[in-house]
Parts: sequence; C-alpha cells; structure tokens
Amino acid sequence: MNIELINTGSELLLGRTLNTHAQWLGRQLAEHGFVITRQVTVADTSAEIDDATRESIAKLLGKTMRPDATVLAQIEKYFTSRKRVMLESMKVQALVPEGALVLPNLHGTAPGLAMEVGDKWLIMLPGPPRELKPMFAESVVPLLVRIFPDREEFASRTLRTVGLGESRVEEQIAPSLQPLVARGLTLGYCAHMGQVDVRLEARGAGREELIREAVGIVRSELRENIFGEGDEELEAVVLRLLAERQQTLALAESCTGGLIAHRLTNISGASAVLIAGLVTYANEAKQKFLGVDLETLAARGAVSEAVAREMAEGARHEAGADYALAVTGVAGPAGGTAAKPVGTVFLALAGAGGTVVEKKFNAFDRETFKELTARQALDLLRREILAAKNPQA
Amino acid sequence: MNIELINTGSELLLGRTLNTHAQWLGRQLAEHGFVITRQVTVADTSAEIDDATRESIAKLLGKTMRPDATVLAQIEKYFTSRKRVMLESMKVQALVPEGALVLPNLHGTAPGLAMEVGDKWLIMLPGPPRELKPMFAESVVPLLVRIFPDREEFASRTLRTVGLGESRVEEQIAPSLQPLVARGLTLGYCAHMGQVDVRLEARGAGREELIREAVGIVRSELRENIFGEGDEELEAVVLRLLAERQQTLALAESCTGGLIAHRLTNISGASAVLIAGLVTYANEAKQKFLGVDLETLAARGAVSEAVAREMAEGARHEAGADYALAVTGVAGPAGGTAAKPVGTVFLALAGAGGTVVEKKFNAFDRETFKELTARQALDLLRREILAAKNPQA
Repeated sequence: MNIELINTGSELLLGRTLNTHAQWLGRQLAEHGFVITRQVTVADTSAEIDDATRESIAKLLGKTMRPDATVLAQIEKYFTSRKRVMLESMKVQALVPEGALVLPNLHGTAPGLAMEVGDKWLIMLPGPPRELKPMFAESVVPLLVRIFPDREEFASRTLRTVGLGESRVEEQIAPSLQPLVARGLTLGYCAHMGQVDVRLEARGAGREELIREAVGIVRSELRENIFGEGDEELEAVVLRLLAERQQTLALAESCTGGLIAHRLTNISGASAVLIAGLVTYANEAKQKFLGVDLETLAARGAVSEAVAREMAEGARHEAGADYALAVTGVAGPAGGTAAKPVGTVFLALAGAGGTVVEKKFNAFDRETFKELTARQALDLLRREILAAKNPQA
Repeated sequence: MNIELINTGSELLLGRTLNTHAQWLGRQLAEHGFVITRQVTVADTSAEIDDATRESIAKLLGKTMRPDATVLAQIEKYFTSRKRVMLESMKVQALVPEGALVLPNLHGTAPGLAMEVGDKWLIMLPGPPRELKPMFAESVVPLLVRIFPDREEFASRTLRTVGLGESRVEEQIAPSLQPLVARGLTLGYCAHMGQVDVRLEARGAGREELIREAVGIVRSELRENIFGEGDEELEAVVLRLLAERQQTLALAESCTGGLIAHRLTNISGASAVLIAGLVTYANEAKQKFLGVDLETLAARGAVSEAVAREMAEGARHEAGADYALAVTGVAGPAGGTAAKPVGTVFLALAGAGGTVVEKKFNAFDRETFKELTARQALDLLRREILAAKNPQA
C-alpha cells in the first residue's frame, strides 16, 4: 500500500508556516500501522483554500457538486451555537462532490471528504488543526481500518524516558533487545530536549508477545527513567500522581518565567492540584511573594542554592501546598558571570519530608534552556512524589 | 523558474521529526526573491544518507564518482582539529560526481554539491542544520545569484496585525490596494489565532516605490491594529514599549495559566520590565496574593468583571508595578455553566489612569483558548500603553 500526503499552502512553501500537519499525520498513521510513502506540498492561490480544493478535485474527477443537507445543518448549528450570523456565502461549504463520503467537522464549517477513485482512496481534510485532528481520529482512522481489513496486523508501544541522552538510552537497551530485533522487533528513538521516546514495533503473528517481552526488557533496564507511555506528557503524569494522592502544588519560577505553570495548566483538571504559580523575576518579588531573605539575595545572589531553597520553602508556606517547586537560573543570553555562566540553574523542591536542591548546567539558547529546565524540574517533582509514601495508599 | 525542494528522511514520513528545514529554506529563498514551487519528502533507507544520496544521483545521471582532493583535505582537517581519528571509511565522503561544483562544509564532513543537468541545476545539501544553514548562506545564495543574474529584483515587507479576522483584514485593505495589485503588487495573508500578517511583494523596476505606497495604504486602513513588522512578536513589542517608557508590569493569570508570563520571558530583557507574574488558579490564591475580596468571589464568581478588576488592581498594588494585566475565564473543557459557558473570559488592565475590563468569548479547545486569550490580553496592554501619554517623551 502506498500513502501519499498532499499539503496545500503557499505559506508552507514560503516558509511562513511550519508543516506540523505532516508530522502529526505521519505519527498518527504510524501509530495505526500505516506509513506515508511520499509527502508533497503544493501552492494554493485562493484565500478560501478548502472550498477551492474541493471544487478543483470534483472537476478533475468529473463529479458534480451537490448541496449536502447534513453538512448544511452542521454549519448552521456551528453559527447559531456561537451566536454568530451565517452569511449566505457560507453555504458553498455545504457543496459536496457526488458519491463522496462526508466526514463531519465538529469544530468548524468545512467538512472532510473521502472518495473512492478506481482502486485508490482520496481523503480530504480541513486545514485548521483543531478541525483536522478530531476529524482524523473520529472519522479517518475507522475508515482506513475498514478499507484495509487485511493489512498486516501491527502492534506498537512507545515508552517515554526522561533524564538520559539518546545514545545513553540506546547503549542501555539495544544489547538486551538484540535477540528480539532478530525475531522482527523494530526499535526507534525520538529525542526531544532531555526526553527520549523508545518506540517498539512488530508485525504479523506473535507481535503482541514480542512487544510485551520488549517492554519488559526496556522497563527493567531504564526503570524510573521511564515516566509514561504513548503520548502522555510529563506534566500530565505529575498532575495525575498528585491528584491520586490528593496533594497540592505551588510553583516559584524565575528563569523558566511561567513555562512550568503553562505546561501544567494545559492539562484539564490542573486546578484541583495547582494552587498558585509565582513568577518572581525581580528580587523584590522573590522577597514580597515568597519571603526570600534580602540578606540571602545579597550574599548569595538570586541564582544560588540558598535562594532556590528559600523560594521553594516560601512558596510552599505562602500557598499552603503539599509541594512547592522552585527554579532560579541564568537563561541568557545576557546576565552570565565567570562564577555563574549562562545556563547555570538551581532546582528546589520543598515537601513534607524536607527540601532537595539540584544544580544543572543547561547552556543553550533561551527557549531551549527554558524547555529543558522545565522538564528537569517536573522530573525532580515526579521522582520525589514516587519516592515518598503515598498518603492515600 | 521552478524550484523543487526534495527532503529525504524516513523519520520525517513517520512523524518522528518535524520538517523545519523546509520552512527555513522556504523562508531564506523567499527573502532572496526565489519561491519554492513544490516540496517533496521521500524515504531513505540508509543510515549514511548523504553518501548514499550522492552515489544514487551520480548513477542516475551516468556520472562516475571521483575523489576530490580539496574535500579530502577538508575532512582530514575536520578530524585533526577535533583531535579525533579519521577512519579509512570516511574517505568515501570525498567522492564527488564528475563535473560537480563542491560546496565546502565548514561544520561537518559531507560536502554540498551543485550540478548542472541540461537546463536545470541540482543542488545537494547535508542534513544537520548546523552544516546546512551556513552552507546555504555562504555557498548556495551566491551560486543562485550567479546562475540567475537576470532574475527580477525583488522587494517585500510584512505588516503584522492583531484583533481582526483574516476576512476582515482583506475586506479593509484589498479594495484600496487594487490599483497597486494591477501595477504588480503581490498580496499575501497569513492568519494565526487573532493575528493576521499581511505580506507585500513586488518585483522589477519601481518595486521599492510600490511597496512603500502599499505600506502607506495598509497603515492608513488598519492603523493601530498593526502592531509590528517582519518577525516581531506582540510580546516583544509590548516589552519594547514599556522599556522605552521605563515602566513596569505585573501579571495576574488565572485561565491562561502562566502563558503570558512565558511569552514575555522568552524575550531577553524581560527582567527589566516584568516584576512578577502571579498564576492564581485557586480562589484562595487570588485572595492571598492579589487581595481579591472573598465576598466578591462568592457573589460574582471567579470568572466575572468584578474579580478581573480586583485581580488587576491587586497585582498592581502588591507588585508596585505601573501596569497590571489580569485574566480570568473558563478554559474548559469542564467548568462551564449556562451563564458562563466554556470560552467566557474577562481581561482587565490596571494603570495609573484607572482600570479597563473587556469581556471576550473564545470558545475553542483549551490550548487555542489560552493562545488567543494571551494575545488579546497583550494587545489590550499595547493599546493602553499607546493611548497613554509617554512619561519619558
């Protein structure tokens, strides 16, 4: 089977937009055992891309466009539920080539379409990610599974690790997995800053058993460096662990500037756990909101083990939280000194059992620094929660 | 002229890697007046991609591979300067198809190649960004300029707007720009959530004048909806305006959960302006850190005009800042009511001249909600700063 992904968009060719759709769809398809053979980006010239594409394709295939009552009703509902007026011109979005399957759009107006053309299928999806992604999951995956019932059965699992580099992860697991690779296991690595995903794939008979054995080996080699499976993010794991224990969290962020709070609050349900996040950039804010001692700031400097400790303990006390996580460092590019160069950072975690402080050196550009530091801080919290006795257990 | 960009990489098709090269090259080419016509990604099967690709292409074109002394010397130098041993097998990287121009690689071992094939040119670049990017700037751009000496000269400018939808921006400027489009102006739009970029391009003689006229028209039509030019982000503009006025800022974020603080602190120099960001998710945190009245919370609810106002005024007072920006809303998917459905949000800005509160309705998924709300809040601040008298002027 060949799968070709066609992206339309002049803004992609001009480099104004990053093609995140190609990655997302590639990944989703791979999760279901389909691999894209070729990806093409072509220009579009119309502002109304989805409508124009739908019409051009109908023309190319010699199909006439017909109004679809279900799509029209869906578009009308979209507008009335948002208390917006539906322009007459919007009705063009309810035109569908004859014989096409309509994929409902629950988050927008342009529907998706699937058409059988000879022995091929053409599937058309809308551009906005918040429309494309649910449509892919809810309509495209079930359709593909139905269209290709006899494709080779496929199994995969992804284990996500934190705290080890890619080569370190590979060194640690590849030798023990060698016999399974010889039996057909496929092994892939995907590295982000401070996080490495290990992807295990197998096809045909015995695939589930092969994957199960592989997961066992990876888990026994990498132990607590594995924080989750599949798409689960570190921040979601941390929130889940705290919610299970009915424990609360406060944050005191200096150099990460609110990124840890932003990550945690991307997860629905964060409000049950996160009491407050204090982004204390200025020294006066560290003093005022966290009770950091002016003398400590003067004697040790804002980027120091002592200030990190006082920030965490102050945040825990002020917010009345079970845990408080604090971060202070030199994000750069300015502000580094010989003793504390750009990239120096202290992480502190205060809990019922006391306070731990870790020093890291993350000498990268500002955004990478923030990303890596936020991940290290969340991981410090995760390890401490797991090491503590679960008060609910 | 047609330009086709071919990316090789199975990891791109599997979605393990995001194709940032395509965006970077598209943008670089556009900056020099070249536009990619089509971009294709194909799989590769070899670990030694660059070598295999070079060899396959030579074969395809019927060219023999010959060792190139300059490339060999470059590779040897690369290894000795890093005190590493050069393996005999590395010498394959010095093989070059006959007749090819060698593009030196100053940051790695595999050279770039440029070959004239009939009336076309084939340019091959290495994969790692730190090798590709300098090679493109230092070798490819001069080569393209030399190959296409009589291409039309090119000029472009991008104006960035906030607060209007794409169709609204288009309605407002397209009619007045029509005569300039007839004279050769190219007009492009790129929409993000709540932000629309207008790109103006012109070629040939009179291009600078055409762009200047177009910028004048767009500015007079869209006025204060234009926040910047080129790549400048809204948060950078806000920071610049405050720094110029020697004014400071505090944030009180509920539903944006730290995203506004994160955006602002991505900019180097944020520490001179941002005193503190308070992510007050829990009601107790709103009360404790911002002094929001318990009675107001009980009577009006956390998502209300009154609480937004008290959050902004409390943050301004507590942090001792010139301005304080506050956000409270229902990000969803849970937490909506009939009176305050998911998407309801109040923005408040407290300053020396008083407090303004705006109500918005951003009914999107959680992450889009946060992104749009953060942009609206930053824009409220930008407009208020511009409307106030500059104390430094």
